[in-house]
Amino acid sequence: MKINCKIGQKSTQISFYKDREKLLEIGGNGLFIFDEFTVNFLQELPRNYLVIGRGEAYKRLEIVEEILTKAVESGLGRDAQFIAVGGGVVCDITAFAASIYMRGVSLILIPTTLLSMVDASLGGKTGVDFRSYKNLVGSFYPAEEVRIYTFFIDTLSTHEYLNGLAEIIKHSLLTGGKFFSKITDRKEEILNRNLDVVEELVYESLLIKKEYVEEDPYEKNGLRAKLNFGHTFGHAYEAITGLENVSHGEAVAWGISRALEAGRLLEITDTHYAETVSKLLHFFNYSIDTKIVDITKFLEALKHDKKNINGLTKFVIQRNLADTYITELPEDIIIKSVM
Amino acid sequence: MKINCKIGQKSTQISFYKDREKLLEIGGNGLFIFDEFTVNFLQELPRNYLVIGRGEAYKRLEIVEEILTKAVESGLGRDAQFIAVGGGVVCDITAFAASIYMRGVSLILIPTTLLSMVDASLGGKTGVDFRSYKNLVGSFYPAEEVRIYTFFIDTLSTHEYLNGLAEIIKHSLLTGGKFFSKITDRKEEILNRNLDVVEELVYESLLIKKEYVEEDPYEKNGLRAKLNFGHTFGHAYEAITGLENVSHGEAVAWGISRALEAGRLLEITDTHYAETVSKLLHFFNYSIDTKIVDITKFLEALKHDKKNINGLTKFVIQRNLADTYITELPEDIIIKSVM
Repeated sequence: MKINCKIGQKSTQISFYKDREKLLEIGGNGLFIFDEFTVNFLQELPRNYLVIGRGEAYKRLEIVEEILTKAVESGLGRDAQFIAVGGGVVCDITAFAASIYMRGVSLILIPTTLLSMVDASLGGKTGVDFRSYKNLVGSFYPAEEVRIYTFFIDTLSTHEYLNGLAEIIKHSLLTGGKFFSKITDRKEEILNRNLDVVEELVYESLLIKKEYVEEDPYEKNGLRAKLNFGHTFGHAYEAITGLENVSHGEAVAWGISRALEAGRLLEITDTHYAETVSKLLHFFNYSIDTKIVDITKFLEALKHDKKNINGLTKFVIQRNLADTYITELPEDIIIKSVM
Repeated sequence: MKINCKIGQKSTQISFYKDREKLLEIGGNGLFIFDEFTVNFLQELPRNYLVIGRGEAYKRLEIVEEILTKAVESGLGRDAQFIAVGGGVVCDITAFAASIYMRGVSLILIPTTLLSMVDASLGGKTGVDFRSYKNLVGSFYPAEEVRIYTFFIDTLSTHEYLNGLAEIIKHSLLTGGKFFSKITDRKEEILNRNLDVVEELVYESLLIKKEYVEEDPYEKNGLRAKLNFGHTFGHAYEAITGLENVSHGEAVAWGISRALEAGRLLEITDTHYAETVSKLLHFFNYSIDTKIVDITKFLEALKHDKKNINGLTKFVIQRNLADTYITELPEDIIIKSVM
């Protein structure tokens, strides 16, 4: 299985592997970036590598500088390749480092979490957090190659697995059709992590993301913004709950429910559809009914989102399955939908 | 006078102004970056601005972070404009900061030195120094607009004026024709800084650079590398002499002489042409006959050039006026041409 995605003037080739074949195989002068966890999956270590800590706390400029320093010390030139082996943080910061080392060197992403397989790996958005804003600093820099090793999915905790599954469900809600049916029809196998089924979902998810990314590579025309479904509510929820207490996927699942609830309150969203999604998210054990207690703090966090510096908060709302649009929301509706 | 330069998918509009009109005039939410010198040329200060120190020592990531922090604190969003008012350092770091703030905001360059007018302002190469390598970290990010205010040329020291003139001479050697004749025919006026003549030279220089940049926006096909004429020798000379002791332009003028000498030793470069260039550079008081004493240190510095990390040192050589190619050089020729 292969996917080729054109992003602006570049293109990303995605390949799927069941086994560990080619995991460390690269062409030229490579610098591998692992996290503390993924480095354990190697039988041998490559010549040039760096291990960084796990988690959002490492997604900052200082770590990018560590990567750049390692590249200089390894004598890597313009023909170098940076290879990220890890989750979203490792992928995002390695990609950012690759985009600015000598004004851009080659980049390979080997995402090891379900979330990074369907999210960070494709689309060219790189970034680090800055002054408490997520991804405030970054670039558009697509990987030349993405390698999906499905065996990594079996290494994930349930928490981490559900973290990625939420993005897959989001993609299925945006596109509907057979993709959504597959998730509802085969939900037990998905919950039990049948790798063949999950691999199909990853593939379908990436096909959807490819569509959005190719049409709107630099997030200019608003199309790609639909991929933020569940994210406006979700990011604010993450911000006030703390990233250690709620995973991105849980926050997105919660955010999807809140967006559907807001749409329902505005009599835009089909009630039956909202209930179907709600049941599905419950089936996968997402805590989507959590109420916000400190509403002032929540509204403040909504405003603090990077997308809203000096602008209005936009929400992605669905009328029904695969029927999506972007709008602002009246404050009373926001409040009612989260309390 | 206007020039429009297409760089990859973007384009840069260059406009010339004799007066201070429009100096602080921008459309949206702007952040101005001045250096200690240029901030004095304003009758009033804009709402958001930052003043940074002068010189290469400020061309580093910490200063980029200062710019990004100021942008966050000023509440600037994706619609922001970063405006650099200064020399090459201010232009390069502001451009780099603009390229990574929210994955890229609008950029206006107002170069205030002759060197930055003809060099840093056009071409999209942004950068900061890193771990003692010049411009090791950066991006390709063309400005939307470049505003050339010729009155700034009168504010420059002789040293700084000659710093920029060397790049103009280099452009004229690459292209030959009327541009080169103008420099030889009107050299007294140029030395005496006749602003009308100098403005023409800036315009001609930018037209040449535009040609190279449009054909090879990302320095892929080697064409744009010809703009490095005089720079391989020059950068190594700068490195061992110290940036405080030799200006970039002096080093480039010296490097051009050394490259022509190397070509002459290889019996590639026309002797009469090499002498003509040598006379012209002497007329403008460039110290092009300086001998390298510590040759080991010099050869080391040549290898240390960022372009040569893990690669061979390439030199731009001319057979004659407007007849240029790129090659490696035998070490004995390098040594003979600088000692």
